[in-house]
Amino acid sequence: MGFMKTLLSNALIIPMTAEGFSLRGDIGIDGKHIAFIGEKPAEFTPDTVIDASSFLVMPALVNAHTHLSMELMRNYKDNAPNLQQWLGEIFPIEDKLNAHDVLIASRLGVIELIQSGITTFNDMYFFPESTARAVNEGGIRGCIGISLFGDLSDTKKRIQERELVMKESMSVSGGRIHLDIAPHAIYTCTKETYQYGHDWAKEHQRRMHTHLSETLKEVTDCLAANHKTPLEYLLEIGVLSDVPSTLAHCVHLTESDVALLKTLDASVVHNPSSNCKLASGVAPIGKYFRAGINVALGTDGSSSNNNLNMFEEMHVASLLSTAFSGDISNLKPYQILEMATINGAKALGLEHQIGTLEVGKEADLLLLDLHKAHLTPLNDPFSALVYSAQASDVHSVFCQGQLVMDNRKVLGFDYDTTLDETNASWKEILKR
Amino acid sequence: MGFMKTLLSNALIIPMTAEGFSLRGDIGIDGKHIAFIGEKPAEFTPDTVIDASSFLVMPALVNAHTHLSMELMRNYKDNAPNLQQWLGEIFPIEDKLNAHDVLIASRLGVIELIQSGITTFNDMYFFPESTARAVNEGGIRGCIGISLFGDLSDTKKRIQERELVMKESMSVSGGRIHLDIAPHAIYTCTKETYQYGHDWAKEHQRRMHTHLSETLKEVTDCLAANHKTPLEYLLEIGVLSDVPSTLAHCVHLTESDVALLKTLDASVVHNPSSNCKLASGVAPIGKYFRAGINVALGTDGSSSNNNLNMFEEMHVASLLSTAFSGDISNLKPYQILEMATINGAKALGLEHQIGTLEVGKEADLLLLDLHKAHLTPLNDPFSALVYSAQASDVHSVFCQGQLVMDNRKVLGFDYDTTLDETNASWKEILKR
Repeated sequence: MGFMKTLLSNALIIPMTAEGFSLRGDIGIDGKHIAFIGEKPAEFTPDTVIDASSFLVMPALVNAHTHLSMELMRNYKDNAPNLQQWLGEIFPIEDKLNAHDVLIASRLGVIELIQSGITTFNDMYFFPESTARAVNEGGIRGCIGISLFGDLSDTKKRIQERELVMKESMSVSGGRIHLDIAPHAIYTCTKETYQYGHDWAKEHQRRMHTHLSETLKEVTDCLAANHKTPLEYLLEIGVLSDVPSTLAHCVHLTESDVALLKTLDASVVHNPSSNCKLASGVAPIGKYFRAGINVALGTDGSSSNNNLNMFEEMHVASLLSTAFSGDISNLKPYQILEMATINGAKALGLEHQIGTLEVGKEADLLLLDLHKAHLTPLNDPFSALVYSAQASDVHSVFCQGQLVMDNRKVLGFDYDTTLDETNASWKEILKR
Repeated sequence: MGFMKTLLSNALIIPMTAEGFSLRGDIGIDGKHIAFIGEKPAEFTPDTVIDASSFLVMPALVNAHTHLSMELMRNYKDNAPNLQQWLGEIFPIEDKLNAHDVLIASRLGVIELIQSGITTFNDMYFFPESTARAVNEGGIRGCIGISLFGDLSDTKKRIQERELVMKESMSVSGGRIHLDIAPHAIYTCTKETYQYGHDWAKEHQRRMHTHLSETLKEVTDCLAANHKTPLEYLLEIGVLSDVPSTLAHCVHLTESDVALLKTLDASVVHNPSSNCKLASGVAPIGKYFRAGINVALGTDGSSSNNNLNMFEEMHVASLLSTAFSGDISNLKPYQILEMATINGAKALGLEHQIGTLEVGKEADLLLLDLHKAHLTPLNDPFSALVYSAQASDVHSVFCQGQLVMDNRKVLGFDYDTTLDETNASWKEILKR
């Protein structure tokens, strides 16, 4: 595909570059990049013109923490009486999965992401090469982690295998796929695994993605074993101070954890639906914001959410933060939107490419249909996005200047085939 | 319109008659009523056949507490630093509204309700005759309250005026509109207003709809003034023990309030989005369930939500209840669904007509499109409805046997005209 020029005319634009700032104008996309915002220069001759006068245009969303292929386990054995029993149902399923299962599930996941206006996600699961393939088919962006569990011999093997199979996907991704290291958690990985993962990240100049302080149990067990909080433990074993990291959950950070976090190149990813559903607790994200920590937003996997819907996630994050702080202005809608856009980009080291609409940045953006009963009157568009909109309001999505969804139709896949294959796959997995 | 027979064939049916019960089968609608569920009798000859094989069919939802015309104030001045300042922006607007404004806003509200699968709502606002007119145009069902504020002379006047103008709407409603009494709250109404309202409800054999124990301030002020909780106060002044009541919010009930509530013909309406957004607190609905109190679900008005989306409300109710209780099985999806269907019907005294799919009941039902990425695989349909579905998955809606939305198109109104009129109205109201 050559360098296509697209004009989105007369849109309500939310660039996410300054609090409360919006403008009515044109956006020009030239090839991969945003060429102009506001007024079309005379010399810009578009190949395609989209009348965006009934759309809001904003940066496409960043889902900063997920396990994409857990799509399969959506609403499966959901009503276990406690977390341990539920995990007891899930783990045996995961042991049975193969690369093809993950490919099918990832295709479904990519469709679902795009339908919610998401073009970038941060993943941690098995067979990352399958997920990467689906990302390429969908034309979106992914930071894909090599998941690590267990001890060092396990870890060396996992990294070696996955690095090999990831080469191809990454080479054809146009820079849209990044390989990261993802040690699962301190209670599933040895110290040596974390250290080896850290060394890999440092050598490859990549990032570490891990679960941190998700539950009180994780924290109290760590304190009992190490006399340190999980964050202090990771610092002590030398894995956080010199590689950038994305720390999922951070529900139970202490005051000194928060102070420590500020000194690191680390972002928190808030996953409110998952935290509530699994009764993990409510992360005090207002406090993290005020401490100057970068807080991004994620859905976690579809088996503890149970979808990949970032509009719902923003809504829940906002309501929770107000309810639990008791302060109706605790976090403004604009800050919630930052979590889902520029903060997510920062969390993944992509803030120079995406996360805002700025001339020269890559054109990852969503067009949201404002001609909806539930968005009428619009009044404050920032509030509307967080409190009134639903994912299905997203009409079209661009990633790196290419249209990936057009009027609710995701372009990279055959929708019916993907749904059918997912159902067939899942039925067969349950029989294994 | 004569007695039309409609066949919905091969649906996944959730009748809401027994926990966890679903069946694949046919549903027959004959005129206003459900004629059969499961297997089509040979003698049933439908006028219309809908292939429901990719749909889930369940009772249409009941929004048990709202202020429909607050649609106008959706996302308006939302970012006030506290509740009092926000109310200070809202009240002057409300003083300016006339019957025509409320008609326009109610039409938008009815569209939005139907688009979320809701056919019954419980309203409390000004100019109820305008809302009733919109209900008739939309073909849905409403329990519409005469809102009471202030002292007795005010109250007598309001009731007299509104009773008169409501007569016509109710006579053409086919039994779908009910007039109730709605004293706003103990801090906006005198004791005499409540008592007069109570007497009216008793005489007309209707219900009382009021806000109760929404905020800690309401409770502490009442304790200071009366040495009683709001519920105890209303009991003492004689307004709750012999009329059925719908008590909105009930965020801050004491243990003895809960015990008292059990002795009354009273339902709680839980409005989690509103309670969170306004930092009112989190109602411990699990506790109310266990005490055997009927708990229904509501969205409140669109200026403290900010939509009328009961799928979101179910989702938020579930997440909050788990997070707040710390117990992942605190309320099961089935119980959340009961809140939005049969419990709502009970709260409004309509449980013999609607709230479940049963032969002989009126045919208020929704068809939900399961052919969605975010509902694949389906696994547990009850979990799917609460954790994965979105309002826009609702494909078609029947109310009293009549189709009111067909493949996302609401039939009673011109959609574009309604949105345009709302925007024009609101623009003009702001200039008054």
